Amino acid sequence: LGMAVSPSTRRLLPLFLGLFQGALLLFFALFVTYDKPSAQAEDVNLVANQLYGIFPLFQDIQVMLVVGLGLLLTFLPQYGFSALTHNFLLLNFSTQWALVLQGLLHHFHHGQVHLDLHNLLTAEFAAVTVLISVGAVLGRTSPCQLLVVAACEVPIYLASEWAITTQLGVLDVGGTITIHVFSCYFGLGMSKALFGAVQQPVHPKETPTPRSDLLSLVGTLILWVFWPSFVAVLCQPGDAQHRAILNTLLAMSASAVTTVVASSLLESDGKLSPGHLQNGSLAGGVAIGAVADMAVPPVAALALGSLSAVACVLGFRFLTPLLARKLALWDQCGIHNLHGLPGILGAAASAVAILVAPEDTSGSHFSQVSPTGGNASEALWGEWGDHRAGRQALCQAAGLAVAIGASLLTGLLTGAALRLPCLARPPERLCFDDSLYFKIQDQAENSRTGDTVEEGALALRERV
Amino acid sequence: LGMAVSPSTRRLLPLFLGLFQGALLLFFALFVTYDKPSAQAEDVNLVANQLYGIFPLFQDIQVMLVVGLGLLLTFLPQYGFSALTHNFLLLNFSTQWALVLQGLLHHFHHGQVHLDLHNLLTAEFAAVTVLISVGAVLGRTSPCQLLVVAACEVPIYLASEWAITTQLGVLDVGGTITIHVFSCYFGLGMSKALFGAVQQPVHPKETPTPRSDLLSLVGTLILWVFWPSFVAVLCQPGDAQHRAILNTLLAMSASAVTTVVASSLLESDGKLSPGHLQNGSLAGGVAIGAVADMAVPPVAALALGSLSAVACVLGFRFLTPLLARKLALWDQCGIHNLHGLPGILGAAASAVAILVAPEDTSGSHFSQVSPTGGNASEALWGEWGDHRAGRQALCQAAGLAVAIGASLLTGLLTGAALRLPCLARPPERLCFDDSLYFKIQDQAENSRTGDTVEEGALALRERV
Amino acid sequence: LGMAVSPSTRRLLPLFLGLFQGALLLFFALFVTYDKPSAQAEDVNLVANQLYGIFPLFQDIQVMLVVGLGLLLTFLPQYGFSALTHNFLLLNFSTQWALVLQGLLHHFHHGQVHLDLHNLLTAEFAAVTVLISVGAVLGRTSPCQLLVVAACEVPIYLASEWAITTQLGVLDVGGTITIHVFSCYFGLGMSKALFGAVQQPVHPKETPTPRSDLLSLVGTLILWVFWPSFVAVLCQPGDAQHRAILNTLLAMSASAVTTVVASSLLESDGKLSPGHLQNGSLAGGVAIGAVADMAVPPVAALALGSLSAVACVLGFRFLTPLLARKLALWDQCGIHNLHGLPGILGAAASAVAILVAPEDTSGSHFSQVSPTGGNASEALWGEWGDHRAGRQALCQAAGLAVAIGASLLTGLLTGAALRLPCLARPPERLCFDDSLYFKIQDQAENSRTGDTVEEGALALRERV
Repeated sequence: LGMAVSPSTRRLLPLFLGLFQGALLLFFALFVTYDKPSAQAEDVNLVANQLYGIFPLFQDIQVMLVVGLGLLLTFLPQYGFSALTHNFLLLNFSTQWALVLQGLLHHFHHGQVHLDLHNLLTAEFAAVTVLISVGAVLGRTSPCQLLVVAACEVPIYLASEWAITTQLGVLDVGGTITIHVFSCYFGLGMSKALFGAVQQPVHPKETPTPRSDLLSLVGTLILWVFWPSFVAVLCQPGDAQHRAILNTLLAMSASAVTTVVASSLLESDGKLSPGHLQNGSLAGGVAIGAVADMAVPPVAALALGSLSAVACVLGFRFLTPLLARKLALWDQCGIHNLHGLPGILGAAASAVAILVAPEDTSGSHFSQVSPTGGNASEALWGEWGDHRAGRQALCQAAGLAVAIGASLLTGLLTGAALRLPCLARPPERLCFDDSLYFKIQDQAENSRTGDTVEEGALALRERV
Repeated sequence: LGMAVSPSTRRLLPLFLGLFQGALLLFFALFVTYDKPSAQAEDVNLVANQLYGIFPLFQDIQVMLVVGLGLLLTFLPQYGFSALTHNFLLLNFSTQWALVLQGLLHHFHHGQVHLDLHNLLTAEFAAVTVLISVGAVLGRTSPCQLLVVAACEVPIYLASEWAITTQLGVLDVGGTITIHVFSCYFGLGMSKALFGAVQQPVHPKETPTPRSDLLSLVGTLILWVFWPSFVAVLCQPGDAQHRAILNTLLAMSASAVTTVVASSLLESDGKLSPGHLQNGSLAGGVAIGAVADMAVPPVAALALGSLSAVACVLGFRFLTPLLARKLALWDQCGIHNLHGLPGILGAAASAVAILVAPEDTSGSHFSQVSPTGGNASEALWGEWGDHRAGRQALCQAAGLAVAIGASLLTGLLTGAALRLPCLARPPERLCFDDSLYFKIQDQAENSRTGDTVEEGALALRERV
Repeated sequence: LGMAVSPSTRRLLPLFLGLFQGALLLFFALFVTYDKPSAQAEDVNLVANQLYGIFPLFQDIQVMLVVGLGLLLTFLPQYGFSALTHNFLLLNFSTQWALVLQGLLHHFHHGQVHLDLHNLLTAEFAAVTVLISVGAVLGRTSPCQLLVVAACEVPIYLASEWAITTQLGVLDVGGTITIHVFSCYFGLGMSKALFGAVQQPVHPKETPTPRSDLLSLVGTLILWVFWPSFVAVLCQPGDAQHRAILNTLLAMSASAVTTVVASSLLESDGKLSPGHLQNGSLAGGVAIGAVADMAVPPVAALALGSLSAVACVLGFRFLTPLLARKLALWDQCGIHNLHGLPGILGAAASAVAILVAPEDTSGSHFSQVSPTGGNASEALWGEWGDHRAGRQALCQAAGLAVAIGASLLTGLLTGAALRLPCLARPPERLCFDDSLYFKIQDQAENSRTGDTVEEGALALRERV
């Protein structure tokens, strides 16, 4: 191990993180304050009510990202501790980094940056893109590489989100295009540039065990339960938010059932694949984001959920092996199937929904608020009606194109940067193993340490 | 395996589910819409506030059913993935099916069905009955059989709930009678008819391991924490809801402590049984449902929680073995102990609470709302006072009788239907095993794979 | 085993608990009622809105204590079931005991005790101190001993909290001093008196496995996510509560990142220690409690989070081994590092924050409410300004001294009481093992059963 990851490289991680924490403290000390307290009693009530509206949803999203996504990534049997910890570290680092960048970029002309829960939420949304992207290279990257990904992807996401939402006026309240599609193709580009043209061999530690599959499914279920909060948290309070929650619930329910149908039909022996269940059940939540608060009928949410689950399962069955064979494209978690394909479906659905929306309700989906509060559609389009709907539908398509193009390009560049030797990519034989980065008993070593009969028997069970 | 479950049977599941998804889409396309958006600002605030009131509780219930109940069922060591997935699939299928039936039955005369979070919630309550009932046959049934159970039980539950709540005017805000008692005896009837007169032998894979017991206990704790939301979600906002939450908290706390007392006293060596803890801690929540929002003193909630925990533990210790021996009644999860006995206790408690309630507070427990919004008690009884209380207490008893009778009868019929050969009940030696329905590594095979030479060598090298 | 824990001792636990449940029922029957229902419609709305404000936070805290803390304690590989169950039992017992004592002490002069969610919450806070303290002796104590700890610590906590908050007027909305510091030194005193001057040998079952470390980390993450609810639940609604949430989020985020830095720097090979991650990530939440709702700038929360994480990791690396060597002080979970050191830091930070707070905002942090609703600072100090700030800062220091002194002393006495032979402290060779108190298959025994011929044959047949 000592040769594989040299001591100087070991010091890079705390050095980088420590410097960043220092810079963060400096930035906050100089520029960031809280809002002034409300002076009047009605204002206090207003603040309290706003908090009661947003805080439970915020907590739901935290559970999703920290516990749900973390557990979903523990399907690699000897890499669970790393997956959980790296996910947690990246979430915190990326959120802090996004707070700094948001402060500098968006609010700096006001002098002081006023921090509130809404800022934290949009910063966390930026962090989500990092968590998704690194799924493509899970287990074959060092923590240093992951931090470089976060350092690169957060500013690119903020720029891309600004271009898509504020400049193009794309409607995407649940982040289908701006978060899911963007982070998917960023991750794929990064993986391609990092691993090059050589197809990755199957690693002996890569196969899930029944235990790791079970824990990963628990992660899926946690994500599934709280997904409506993720989609609806930035909606307009009232009907739009209610509709967004219902649409998401319907889409996810259809996804769950359709995944079973599709997985069962595609496997020759009719058995269900754990990977399909872990991902397909969530596909509807990815796809529904762009149309969740629009005035679409409930059947559209169900259909979109079913379609995206089918796309996800088909992707796992056919597209991922094809991409690996033809393009030597490595996608460890199948992010293309969970975030890419359903995201594109959702973007297309949003364009269709805008085109076919009845005249009298079109107002409702043009008045929504984007993830970062931009509301440019009102400014861009003065007249109403079909003309406007057509242009808005084009915008959705343009937004999708920008998200894919920008993320692929910048992902490739980021991936190239990850090849720097100082970032200490782990050698193949040390991949997928917690003991490379954590003082954790090697699972094999553990069974051998217990040399006594009962200890050995115990260890045997532990490897199951 | 190929012989055990033939390919044509393998195709039945996706066929059935696929057709159902198609019918669901058709039904939604034709009949279901969302409510019209509110026109005025005050209405928007009202909608937002209603949403903030109900949505956190709704999410709590989702966590209970998807994660909590799912994990509780993972006590079978090699059947955890199946238990979690089947629970998840059944929840989604049954909710969708209940939405369709509710739409057809209750709302169809209004032309359009207006979907909101409240509808989804009552549909999910219908699904809960299915999830409870199938606990009696966990591990010895095929997914096809489980779907048939759901297809049969949901309409029967809706009819029974209508009869008990709307026609008889039974007060049961937490579903003690309508959900728990009903689903318990439905499940027992079904198990009896399915397995016939032959006592089931103990299967080698049926014994929990320390690991599966631990995960199952985590499920219990999740259910325990969120149970107050389940009981209180449909209460009148304000005092009744506050009281329902407090009563549930007290009952569950008493249950938890009393379970330890009872389990410890009943076992000869004073050791606690994991099964008692996993179930007894929740018994108070089952029993309190019928009286939760009534004007009962706090001590009643504590006493009911303690009593139901004792009943649950006694049931596991004596009644379940007795029923297995005398009636050849198979109850894998002990649903009779967790849902049947405490449910009957709760129903009796509700009759007593109505009889002894002081005159001046009786108004508060006659103004409550039933799980499906029926409020027939107001219509049935014109005069107030003891006379009314006596009749209401009789109603509670009648509701209990209807719930037990109807569910046993229909459960037996459903169980008989499950014997159809096309539903592919797994043969005994393949029961309790994930690998029958999932592409999951056999646990024994897996531990042997881990012993291959190259794995061992790789592990050895890594520690150098 | 039968010799180790005699039958008569086995009966002590249910006897004690059963008697307590009886006394609880009696107390509730005689003295406790719910509030009268609100008569007017506005009141009903008010009650509903208050409930919607507090109930989601209350549920978050329940998840933390029952699931999060429970899982955190499962790091002992063969003691997970005990850790989870004992934590759950202690929470319920201590909460009930605190309800009784609070009823007797605080509310008795009003005749009837009116129970509401707020009472339950403060009783649960008393229970938290017990859950923290017993972490010092995890795995080496019997359930009877744990109940004695709870029986002693709850009244002492209530007295100490009354002295610190109500009499001294210490500001400590998140329980940094009253809960964390108090319970830490109570636990250490107890451990010292219980185990005496002999250093505990390393037990073979004490070493975490990768699996138990993973589950424990999941517990940490659940605690991490919901910690803001714990700190903010008793804040004034409105700005103070918003600020408390933001401060806690910032502190915990800084803790998470800084823990990685500190752990990586301290270990010679740069690998992260699971124990550091499991505890250090939470240190910021402990420290921020005393200043969370004060008018401190965001940078203070970040800095406090970072500092407390460094203190926690340094404590694990150097202080705990030193205390074990020099003082023979046993601290199984490292509560001194997670609750003691960050708590002292937080108390110091609160004094500093009060001293340096700008004149015009000092009002905001003197108007806060303490965990038990005392608000004595208003009464103690009539004049405003620096003079008052200086005295308040002294109060914070005095509160810290009282918390440490009182808890150490009473902890030592409690620990001495735990040495009573009738409490059946488990002998060393039976420590850290679930099978001592639970009818759970011994893990070694279990794995041997799995290797029997018939099992292997069955498994083999199934794969054919």
